[in-house]
Amino acid sequence: MNDAMTDTSVWADGAAFVGGEVVPIAEAKIPITAWGYRRSDVTYDVVGVYHGAFFRLKDHLRRFRASMKSLRMEPPESDADIARILTGLVRRTGLREAYVAMDCMRGRPPRGVPYHPAYAPASLLCFAIPWVWLFSEEQQARGVHAMIAKTPRIAPESVDPTVKNFHWGDLTKAAFEAHDAGFEAAVLLDAEGMVTEGPGYNVFAVIDGAVVTPDRGALEGITRLSVFELSDELGIAHAARPISAAEFANADEIFFATTAGGIMPVSRLGRRILGNDRPGPVSARLREVFWEKRRRGWHATPIDYDAAD
Amino acid sequence: MNDAMTDTSVWADGAAFVGGEVVPIAEAKIPITAWGYRRSDVTYDVVGVYHGAFFRLKDHLRRFRASMKSLRMEPPESDADIARILTGLVRRTGLREAYVAMDCMRGRPPRGVPYHPAYAPASLLCFAIPWVWLFSEEQQARGVHAMIAKTPRIAPESVDPTVKNFHWGDLTKAAFEAHDAGFEAAVLLDAEGMVTEGPGYNVFAVIDGAVVTPDRGALEGITRLSVFELSDELGIAHAARPISAAEFANADEIFFATTAGGIMPVSRLGRRILGNDRPGPVSARLREVFWEKRRRGWHATPIDYDAAD
Repeated sequence: MNDAMTDTSVWADGAAFVGGEVVPIAEAKIPITAWGYRRSDVTYDVVGVYHGAFFRLKDHLRRFRASMKSLRMEPPESDADIARILTGLVRRTGLREAYVAMDCMRGRPPRGVPYHPAYAPASLLCFAIPWVWLFSEEQQARGVHAMIAKTPRIAPESVDPTVKNFHWGDLTKAAFEAHDAGFEAAVLLDAEGMVTEGPGYNVFAVIDGAVVTPDRGALEGITRLSVFELSDELGIAHAARPISAAEFANADEIFFATTAGGIMPVSRLGRRILGNDRPGPVSARLREVFWEKRRRGWHATPIDYDAAD
Repeated sequence: MNDAMTDTSVWADGAAFVGGEVVPIAEAKIPITAWGYRRSDVTYDVVGVYHGAFFRLKDHLRRFRASMKSLRMEPPESDADIARILTGLVRRTGLREAYVAMDCMRGRPPRGVPYHPAYAPASLLCFAIPWVWLFSEEQQARGVHAMIAKTPRIAPESVDPTVKNFHWGDLTKAAFEAHDAGFEAAVLLDAEGMVTEGPGYNVFAVIDGAVVTPDRGALEGITRLSVFELSDELGIAHAARPISAAEFANADEIFFATTAGGIMPVSRLGRRILGNDRPGPVSARLREVFWEKRRRGWHATPIDYDAAD
């Protein structure tokens, strides 16, 4: 073990697995010519580490594998290999709360073969960095201020949102719309005016006591799955079904869900102030139980920080 | 000047401008955490070098600047700076035929500011590599074999195709469709069944003696502009207007246009064999005149390979 390996300061900002090697995050780079960048020909997943344990690691690995298959990417690493690589990265950083990403991207066809993605090999890239909150704890406690954006979400027929991807042009445009209008978050509709998702999160409404979320045009989020499970446990009805913009705007409560934030109540949607400008009772309860269960080790895969790689 | 600077072999594969420095293409990389990659929050342009001269450099710089403005990116470099950087890169490689790219991408917001693209600075990245033919000269001479893909093009309301971008998920899917069916190229329709563009090229048809191309849902290509100019010169009527899939499938001739290939005739569209399975007369004539004029210095900005940087 050389000095760089034991100097934790080099690794505190994060560690990455690139080209088969583990490097500090500052050195984790991809070629400017790779199609993963130049054609956004890449899929990814992000698993959270909280109190020294992965949350729903198997669910993330399952989704990541399905995404890779959909894009016809077959990196040499098995799911067990990926789990081992991610664990090694978190251990290297020593982080007890971390944002852990796995990417699979196509490079570029070597010379002498057709200039087509079928001939470009895919490779795995991973990294672990300090935890990122999509919305601050203060924003979550008082409720996020959101609006419905004019920019429509990319249609699922063009780019499948259940295959987690970096096609964020519409989401970024919507984020600017919200920022310009003084809001913190955007919700995107599809071309037919139905609710889809926001930049990095699934969207939920509480209507007549039931928790509802769109059944198409959005990522099948792992935190979304947790919302379903918690609703079952708390005896709250839930459904994935079409939600029109009008129905959404008149919902009793609204909240978002994502790995980088958990369950995040919304207290304003455009000019409308929901409840008392505070998180609604169902949203607040779900958020509370979510973190309570996380602290007690729900769906947790603990990391042995002292093990050898 | 150190040895690396004078060893042409290091630069023969390409040179890049990254982080304000000129490096060999093999060392040109972007951070795995940059939003230019992780959110495809980037625009770009590509200018060709042929016989030691840029083709329509000013037109590419004008479009690149308009794209950056649309995405609210303001790198420190002026158009004159960019032209100087690109020229320096080509000179460094010594390449007389080159594919020269300029990217402007957002990084990531520094710590302590909101986690929003409005707070992430944009930076310029450029590179020059040996010329790439999208379709081989043999394919161009006998006509490309194309098909209409089932995957619809991302709608312009979601991601503006006139702002050149890396949102290629739909284009890559269509390229796989074509490859699976034994074709070399794909043409994408929009959700209403109108022709848009293909993976990396504009699409044209010759109908009743006139050259037509879609007026929306596609990049406003610089080679497309050259097609208009050449048509004027040759006395061929031309129009940018909606083209239905049925009209396209029954066209007299079809051809593609792109920087990385020029004007490329199509001889098959799905099961239909056009003409005598060879490029049609209008397409062939446009291709011939295009390269003839290029050789004579049309819209050329010659590169002084012996100048100092």
